[in-house]
Amino acid sequence: MKLKEIQGGVCAPKGFKANGVHCGIRKNKLKRDFALIVSEVRAATAGVYTSNLVKGAPVIVTKRNLTDGYAQAIICNSGNANTCNDNGIEIAEQTCLLVEHAGGISSKDVVVASTGVIGQKLDLSPMADHIGELWNGLGDNSDFAAEAIMTTDTVKKSVAVQFTVGGVKCAIGAIAKGVGMVCPNMATNLIFLTSDVAITPQMLQTALSADVKNSFNMLSVDGDQSTNDTCCIMANGLAGNKLIDAKGSDYKAFCRALNYCTVKLTKMLAKDGEGATKLIECRVIGADKKNTAAAVAKSVIKSSLVKAAMFGSDANWGRVLCAIGYAGVKVDINAVDVAFSSRKGVLAVCKGGFGIEFSEEIAKEILSEDEITIEINLNSGKAEATAWGCDLTYDYVKINGDYRT
Amino acid sequence: MKLKEIQGGVCAPKGFKANGVHCGIRKNKLKRDFALIVSEVRAATAGVYTSNLVKGAPVIVTKRNLTDGYAQAIICNSGNANTCNDNGIEIAEQTCLLVEHAGGISSKDVVVASTGVIGQKLDLSPMADHIGELWNGLGDNSDFAAEAIMTTDTVKKSVAVQFTVGGVKCAIGAIAKGVGMVCPNMATNLIFLTSDVAITPQMLQTALSADVKNSFNMLSVDGDQSTNDTCCIMANGLAGNKLIDAKGSDYKAFCRALNYCTVKLTKMLAKDGEGATKLIECRVIGADKKNTAAAVAKSVIKSSLVKAAMFGSDANWGRVLCAIGYAGVKVDINAVDVAFSSRKGVLAVCKGGFGIEFSEEIAKEILSEDEITIEINLNSGKAEATAWGCDLTYDYVKINGDYRT
Repeated sequence: MKLKEIQGGVCAPKGFKANGVHCGIRKNKLKRDFALIVSEVRAATAGVYTSNLVKGAPVIVTKRNLTDGYAQAIICNSGNANTCNDNGIEIAEQTCLLVEHAGGISSKDVVVASTGVIGQKLDLSPMADHIGELWNGLGDNSDFAAEAIMTTDTVKKSVAVQFTVGGVKCAIGAIAKGVGMVCPNMATNLIFLTSDVAITPQMLQTALSADVKNSFNMLSVDGDQSTNDTCCIMANGLAGNKLIDAKGSDYKAFCRALNYCTVKLTKMLAKDGEGATKLIECRVIGADKKNTAAAVAKSVIKSSLVKAAMFGSDANWGRVLCAIGYAGVKVDINAVDVAFSSRKGVLAVCKGGFGIEFSEEIAKEILSEDEITIEINLNSGKAEATAWGCDLTYDYVKINGDYRT
Repeated sequence: MKLKEIQGGVCAPKGFKANGVHCGIRKNKLKRDFALIVSEVRAATAGVYTSNLVKGAPVIVTKRNLTDGYAQAIICNSGNANTCNDNGIEIAEQTCLLVEHAGGISSKDVVVASTGVIGQKLDLSPMADHIGELWNGLGDNSDFAAEAIMTTDTVKKSVAVQFTVGGVKCAIGAIAKGVGMVCPNMATNLIFLTSDVAITPQMLQTALSADVKNSFNMLSVDGDQSTNDTCCIMANGLAGNKLIDAKGSDYKAFCRALNYCTVKLTKMLAKDGEGATKLIECRVIGADKKNTAAAVAKSVIKSSLVKAAMFGSDANWGRVLCAIGYAGVKVDINAVDVAFSSRKGVLAVCKGGFGIEFSEEIAKEILSEDEITIEINLNSGKAEATAWGCDLTYDYVKINGDYRT
């Protein structure tokens, strides 16, 4: 059965409720800044996290809470990352306790996350004051939660799909936020996924860890890797499928649906990168091995010069070749073909490492679209990889030149 | 004896002449685009080059010409990098032959360099047409050469120092150009140094290779590593000092003068980084080893978020800590102190990995200067390193959004 996109975000799978309110961490009263996602029952839960040595306190507490592979709620604030504060762990633990007191879920079954400025103490009181409102408003409110986790994001990021596992209808839903300090290696700030599939914590972790390699870890907005990156998935089993406890066709069906959601979110995150006007996809084929393809794709997508050229709709393929050359992997430059494509067409610009003549007019037309693919053929094998990013614009600088004040 | 800065650039050492003319590779007739530096006699010559797999044809030809450790002339054009063209090697060789025909210097004793757009064929004829004018104008014209190698540089970069080797007065002179596609690992596009010191090609290469690790390789403007990076030094021996053929006090005196020139140029290159309004220096002390200090300094200086914060005079030290955390080296984050300084003063912002209270007003005052130092103490040893870079501005995007057209 085909995957089918459905409505509902994290509330699309059975047994999940969500909410988001304004609690006051952010000054703008119109902006929700406090989110909660709750499962009716304890759910197998897996996570992947930033590999930055500087880890937000919530990341440390969440990892600890997920040691047993189960959780029942995700709580998250935006506006303050609760990172590099001497009372960070304490505040993160107390945030989990708020859920316990409001809803009777053990604080050890809570995933806690924070996003925003680093190094400013996070005050518990706005959250303590609004936990009741947050809990009482739980319902089919995935969009409220999606809004509440946003920082410099300009659009809410949400997806849900329906699929079948052994003939049983299941669903996965997700919300995510970016959109600066985003770089390959558990790339995205926060991604929360829910599912009603029945799966063991071990298989869920295996699926998630494998998946992020081809989705969130292939995303770069600005090459800066956040201290708070967290991607968690709760699977509560309420769909009633036969428990997935090993690899096989059921596991595959789940992975396929998961990958649909994660790649879709990855693209959304790239397109909404800070200041971005364009989604840039870099597709590398013909590599000798997967690692080579991935390193090349990431190097190109991260290049400030490539990103700036894409902003200017400038077919400066020399910069693409240059970024391939410093990717740190062995590539036969004299075998490399490069083309640019978009819904307006495909244009080859480089064959065997050398430039070929092309129409600047057609190049401009292709590159003026808001979704552009840089196609690279290494002509050295069959491995491939795709990375996603965005253009580098005046607005990126503007947003980040004065973020705190 | 103290080092003494002197005038004259690459013509400051005995026996060097230079010139720069407009030959027509660039459309702007007011901009010189063709440079020549000549030594009266064959000179010991050393070079370091880009480690990008994509290498400009001139880099390949120069490396070959320097196999014997000697050269007598440096020829360079701007406006076209002669890279990724199927006739690139041929054109680079013919450029060397122009020098042979005009001045009787063997084409094998010529360092050739090109800088500008990648992937567009370089036409020999403008250079062939102007080699006579270029040769005939050789003289005390270091500034003409410095101008001719500029691309998006806004100021000429030149330095010269006098020093003594065993009681004999010697000099080193240099010109350089940046200022985009600049990243640690033989960081700068083109740097040409001259000296009248007597030194063997082997010791000259040893000195240069060691020096760039602490100067040009510690520079990042945009994280993109050029395909044409070349740093060459010619030492013609006309000062008459006792030949430096081993390490010792004479070698040390030379290295000290060399380092003065290279660090000065590095700072000039950083400050003139594309679109830059500020020179950012990142000084790391207290590291367990040199590599740790260097990796941390480079990671911070390369962070787009740190760079954008510096542009906005925003004391967002969390981004500094974040960049330390993904530097890829082992660091005890809970030992890290961070301070910002400039000629307006020093301000501690982070102690032991946690934020401390500071005056935003004073921070703004310090960071509004055009030369800022980010001081990091890892408190884990005695090794240190310094890296240089610049802020990320609207103009960087503007310059690179439409460079070719």
